[in-house]
Amino acid sequence: MSDRSRRGCLILIGGGEDRDPKGDRVILREVARHLRGGKLVLATVASHQPEGYFDDYDEAFADLDVGPLVELYVNDRAEAGDRDKLRVLDEAAGVFFSGGDQLRITSQIGDSGIEAKVRALFDRGGLVAGTSAGASVMSDTMLVRGSSSVTHRIGDLHMSPGLGLIRNVIIDQHFAERGRFGRLIGAVAHNPRILGIGIDEDTAAVVEDDSFKVIGSGAVYVVDGTRVSHCNLAEAEPDRVLSMHDVTVHVLGTGDRYDLKARRPIPAPR
Amino acid sequence: MSDRSRRGCLILIGGGEDRDPKGDRVILREVARHLRGGKLVLATVASHQPEGYFDDYDEAFADLDVGPLVELYVNDRAEAGDRDKLRVLDEAAGVFFSGGDQLRITSQIGDSGIEAKVRALFDRGGLVAGTSAGASVMSDTMLVRGSSSVTHRIGDLHMSPGLGLIRNVIIDQHFAERGRFGRLIGAVAHNPRILGIGIDEDTAAVVEDDSFKVIGSGAVYVVDGTRVSHCNLAEAEPDRVLSMHDVTVHVLGTGDRYDLKARRPIPAPR
Repeated sequence: MSDRSRRGCLILIGGGEDRDPKGDRVILREVARHLRGGKLVLATVASHQPEGYFDDYDEAFADLDVGPLVELYVNDRAEAGDRDKLRVLDEAAGVFFSGGDQLRITSQIGDSGIEAKVRALFDRGGLVAGTSAGASVMSDTMLVRGSSSVTHRIGDLHMSPGLGLIRNVIIDQHFAERGRFGRLIGAVAHNPRILGIGIDEDTAAVVEDDSFKVIGSGAVYVVDGTRVSHCNLAEAEPDRVLSMHDVTVHVLGTGDRYDLKARRPIPAPR
Repeated sequence: MSDRSRRGCLILIGGGEDRDPKGDRVILREVARHLRGGKLVLATVASHQPEGYFDDYDEAFADLDVGPLVELYVNDRAEAGDRDKLRVLDEAAGVFFSGGDQLRITSQIGDSGIEAKVRALFDRGGLVAGTSAGASVMSDTMLVRGSSSVTHRIGDLHMSPGLGLIRNVIIDQHFAERGRFGRLIGAVAHNPRILGIGIDEDTAAVVEDDSFKVIGSGAVYVVDGTRVSHCNLAEAEPDRVLSMHDVTVHVLGTGDRYDLKARRPIPAPR
């Protein structure tokens, strides 16, 4: 992994983060901490109906020492190079991608002027956060579709190129809540170079340099295929169920860290 | 594990097995195969309302070369030693526990004359099958309750003594369908001596001697805690999320086997 691919901080959120103005808002607080009072762009691009997102986050961030919160939305890919859209990102300390459909993000802003400015912000040490679809989209290859709550069938999974702000991982969200263990293991089966990261709701992986720490009320699951001794992915029929032996799984709770380079978990200090 | 603890054949079914008289009924067919035309006792003890189970299975087994199918039910624990109830098990080649509540099985027939006869049947090489609650109940310690679709919280899991026909494992059912990975990993965290076996719907682990093979349309997950390097179970607060590192997981599909003694998966022959 090159340094270039991970200069700023990435906050990958499993969806459903606490946004109650009276709540702890552990994850939004962490977002705010990284902004140091700077401007935050709320990119609602993942949504087909972005109404309401801004007001919701505006209220949630109100007392959290965030500079101006401004919304970025594109109705159509043609707008993704518009000057006034690009100007929204000027002097931003961070971008927060809200939930929806990860394919809407990549199809509307992938390889656009907006994407270039997000990348530039990240490369100069800025914050990029994303929740739900906004988290999935951060990897090189992203999970798009695949049955939850069913053991992965070999032909069942759809992946697609993501924004590529973090390499060699694939991210799934609403993880325990939607029973997505089977599909994440299915994704890792395709190429164990890819580390599976499954993030529960109201939980986040805060990635800096080559490691992440876990915050929030749920867990982050890491699915590591390094030791896999058998996988029937290439030989079996598409409707056949996946068989994969010797997968290593880590269940990481608040305070646990994970070294992405060494592929090792680090327990929370007592 | 003593030989005594596993003399007959155990068929552990994850619930929802194909019972359509026009369907393949792969699992019921396997049950029938082990009976070799002998008598099968359908124990509906797990259910508070057993009406309908018998007719359903009677129809499903009709053309599968099973000898007489007879129902065994107890309204109350007082009946679990009744002569006519015990007589139902005479000359049986197998017992099939249908679904419901595993605690109803153990509280009504645990340590009773019925249980003794089931054990004797098993010890002389008979078949004991169980689906859903009827599968969970087979182990020494069984899973009774624990949130599905939520990452395991340390105080959240309830276990209880089961029938003990298979030792050193804990069985969960409706596994991928109900997103139960978190709770099975939570059970294993309590004592990695226990191997976690999670069985999908319409899927079974057929246990003979010291190994099992997988049949059916889903997967059997094995959660092995042997290599676990960190677990916060004993030190953290009950509402804290579980943290467990270096869990080994096998996803086993049809035809795969698992050696319970060596704790090693064996791929299906190509």
